[in-house]
Amino acid sequence: METSSSEKEKHLAAMKAVTYIKNGQVIGLGTGSTADYAIREIGKLVQKGLQIKAIPTSKKTQELAESLDIPIIDSNSVDYIDITIDGADEFNEDMVLIKGGGGALLREKIVASMTRKQIIVADSSKQVAKLGLAFKLPIEVIPFASNYVMNQVRGLGGTCDIRHQSGKIFVTEQGNWILDANFGHIKDPQSLSHSLNKISGLVCHGLFIDLADIVIIGRGNEEETIARKLS
Amino acid sequence: METSSSEKEKHLAAMKAVTYIKNGQVIGLGTGSTADYAIREIGKLVQKGLQIKAIPTSKKTQELAESLDIPIIDSNSVDYIDITIDGADEFNEDMVLIKGGGGALLREKIVASMTRKQIIVADSSKQVAKLGLAFKLPIEVIPFASNYVMNQVRGLGGTCDIRHQSGKIFVTEQGNWILDANFGHIKDPQSLSHSLNKISGLVCHGLFIDLADIVIIGRGNEEETIARKLS
Repeated sequence: METSSSEKEKHLAAMKAVTYIKNGQVIGLGTGSTADYAIREIGKLVQKGLQIKAIPTSKKTQELAESLDIPIIDSNSVDYIDITIDGADEFNEDMVLIKGGGGALLREKIVASMTRKQIIVADSSKQVAKLGLAFKLPIEVIPFASNYVMNQVRGLGGTCDIRHQSGKIFVTEQGNWILDANFGHIKDPQSLSHSLNKISGLVCHGLFIDLADIVIIGRGNEEETIARKLS
Repeated sequence: METSSSEKEKHLAAMKAVTYIKNGQVIGLGTGSTADYAIREIGKLVQKGLQIKAIPTSKKTQELAESLDIPIIDSNSVDYIDITIDGADEFNEDMVLIKGGGGALLREKIVASMTRKQIIVADSSKQVAKLGLAFKLPIEVIPFASNYVMNQVRGLGGTCDIRHQSGKIFVTEQGNWILDANFGHIKDPQSLSHSLNKISGLVCHGLFIDLADIVIIGRGNEEETIARKLS
């Protein structure tokens, strides 16, 4: 799998992340290439006798976890999740993330919100000084409201396109559409998040604020860990 | 249909509401028994030659409109709606509404948000001095997040139950569930709305604030119109 330096960095971050997991915990499983490394590492630990229960953030992740004999439970059967390991498309020094490149942002955000220790794993390319320049902000919308939400996003200074895949509109696991919104440099993520949350028909946006507790970054042959000052 | 005084009041309000409609306009069609009176009145006007295009807020409303030969258009084909006529489960003197008894709150809120002149039609029983006492607040949630959202609602001082119908969980047209939340008297709807909007997995809540422009109340043999001071 490790065909490039970024793959190696992802793997290094994932290997470090799983060391936080303790026996008996409920673990949230992220979605995407970096989360997949962590899930495979968790699979190895389960093979060796680690007892955990997992809540996946997408069908793809659920299938991978099941293939590795990781026990899955219903998100509604627990009041909180001990640890979640997930990736991010971008993060800044304040540990604000942009997520949603894979389209799983809604379940990822719900799981992150339920989680006591959210660990973000990433290769070094995901660390940015300015959010929103390299990666557009994904916004999940009720299809009925897509034109309305696009107009509201324009009112907030953004431009956006409906995400397509193989020539067709991309549909999320919840049956919604994704808008990829370009706001340029997102200087005040909290204010933008607040404005977006008020829009009717907008189900979820990819700004994750105050949700990451630890970010583990693969960098070359090592990994670096950043933790929130307040936990 | 007019088997009771409240049915008469609904009909009186609906007849007044349709007088606001002008030729060529795009009209939002609400959902519920009072909105149905308005839709039937609009059907009569269309029969007489009124040219409008309509956007329904539910499948049931769409079927009624189609049966009356009211032309339907896609919500994404317009940037705004001229007039919407819809009902409410409760409203107070500030024209804050509670909606969602019929489970169509999400499309109703999107349509209201797109609308330049939102007309609420109601019988006199819907007017309350204190919001939230007679009617619980409907909250549409992603099923995956239902337990999490219920915990968050408890944290905000509310209790709630998952809505059932005929012994099964009620499923909205978007495939979501409804929580009916009891916050007691909702003294500060704006603050509650803000807190609810931040909860991941919460798709829509039934507090409609600053969305009603005109409320028409049937009262006995007459109707009373309340308009917002600022339009």
